[in-house]
Amino acid sequence: MFCKTNPETRKTKPETMRTIKLTISYDGTLYKGWQSQKNGKTIQDEIEKAIEKVLAKKHVLYSASRTDAGVHAKKQVAHFKTSSAISLVKIPLALNTALPDDIAITKAELVPDSFHARFDAKIKHYCYHVYNSHNRDPFKEKYSWRVPYKLNVALMKKEALVLAGEHDFKSFQAKDKIERPSVRKIHKIIVRKNKSDIFINIEGNGFLYNMVRSIAGTLVDIGRGYLPQGSMKDILKSKDRTKAGPTAPAKGLFLIEVKY
Amino acid sequence: MFCKTNPETRKTKPETMRTIKLTISYDGTLYKGWQSQKNGKTIQDEIEKAIEKVLAKKHVLYSASRTDAGVHAKKQVAHFKTSSAISLVKIPLALNTALPDDIAITKAELVPDSFHARFDAKIKHYCYHVYNSHNRDPFKEKYSWRVPYKLNVALMKKEALVLAGEHDFKSFQAKDKIERPSVRKIHKIIVRKNKSDIFINIEGNGFLYNMVRSIAGTLVDIGRGYLPQGSMKDILKSKDRTKAGPTAPAKGLFLIEVKY
Repeated sequence: MFCKTNPETRKTKPETMRTIKLTISYDGTLYKGWQSQKNGKTIQDEIEKAIEKVLAKKHVLYSASRTDAGVHAKKQVAHFKTSSAISLVKIPLALNTALPDDIAITKAELVPDSFHARFDAKIKHYCYHVYNSHNRDPFKEKYSWRVPYKLNVALMKKEALVLAGEHDFKSFQAKDKIERPSVRKIHKIIVRKNKSDIFINIEGNGFLYNMVRSIAGTLVDIGRGYLPQGSMKDILKSKDRTKAGPTAPAKGLFLIEVKY
Repeated sequence: MFCKTNPETRKTKPETMRTIKLTISYDGTLYKGWQSQKNGKTIQDEIEKAIEKVLAKKHVLYSASRTDAGVHAKKQVAHFKTSSAISLVKIPLALNTALPDDIAITKAELVPDSFHARFDAKIKHYCYHVYNSHNRDPFKEKYSWRVPYKLNVALMKKEALVLAGEHDFKSFQAKDKIERPSVRKIHKIIVRKNKSDIFINIEGNGFLYNMVRSIAGTLVDIGRGYLPQGSMKDILKSKDRTKAGPTAPAKGLFLIEVKY
């Protein structure tokens, strides 16, 4: 009967604490990537500042993917825990008012307390955009990698398929940020051409640092004939980063979606 | 027999003088419009600087349209006269190297000496992009006008057709820049919807200052029900700018093409 005021109960049942999942779209051009850092603007910092402004309290955000400097996102996911009573509908509206034009919260959802944007992510979908043209296009410049060489897209499509499935992707891992184990599973990899635009879509259960960009760089080297047909199989087997192509520029990479 | 050195002949036949037509694409976000001015960066200034750098001499550019601050162009046209012997193929490559990333020369052609980008233009094609959504999209923010209200696009399509043909467009002319006569001919006006994007395509023989943007603002006012069905006819007849809708923001306007 006196249990209502039992401090133990209050401690274990903080009924007002909610976990909020945000879906976020951003143009990464002007940012040093997702993750908060001492020098330079980051997406995380901007959103955490907006949350602090709206909820009058600091909150820490956890994202599905720590996208690199210059990388864009259509549907990045991040979560935070809050005791604020703000309605879910108001969260995107209020945060967007406080955010710069190149970052937008497109959705806010209530998720179970156990939800973690990074650890619960089942599939991440990235798209790398190659603009295959001699001419610069001011509207694509910040959102693609312009490659002026003639590309054999049919060969790129074929070689890309070698990567589907579970493999050790050590050959496509940045040398300065080694992750162990380096086995990942690519569920889908599709190279699509639309006039001068080539889109490399990759869905996987996780990606090593710079993995999508190294795959894109390797596919372009194959497409332009700098690496011979059949290279992808050999590169994958070699587990040697020096055998693969260059790391394609960040500006062509989009985090499209995260599935849970 | 001595005619070859006759100075009169040399004067009337400057054989090395060529007229070059440039096709230009630009993201107008960071510029004070096309036309050279004392304060602020303009597209004309940037290209003239690039020409001076490449040809080691000042040249004056004449454009088909003096697009306003923030307006974009897919295929703006401009011409200049030069005695330089630079090959046509090299002009876009050399100028693009000297230009910022948000301006690109996509074509250079030799045209008759009598060619004038502005006075010879037969048809100009503009497109106004309305992004009809509650949510901000960081990738559309700089290239569209976001309208959150529900829009009756079928009505917008119908009312737009009233403007096709030759009319006095005084009602859609900026009050501070009156041009006389204000009769223009709209060859085509098509409102197209693709998911949340609404494109207002207008082709005409010429446009008054802010005319496309006033038409876009009026169509949005009709679409959201702020102006009743049948308004466009009355507004056009009234020859009164105050009867029309607002001037839509510059960032949603694209000069698509100029036909000669």
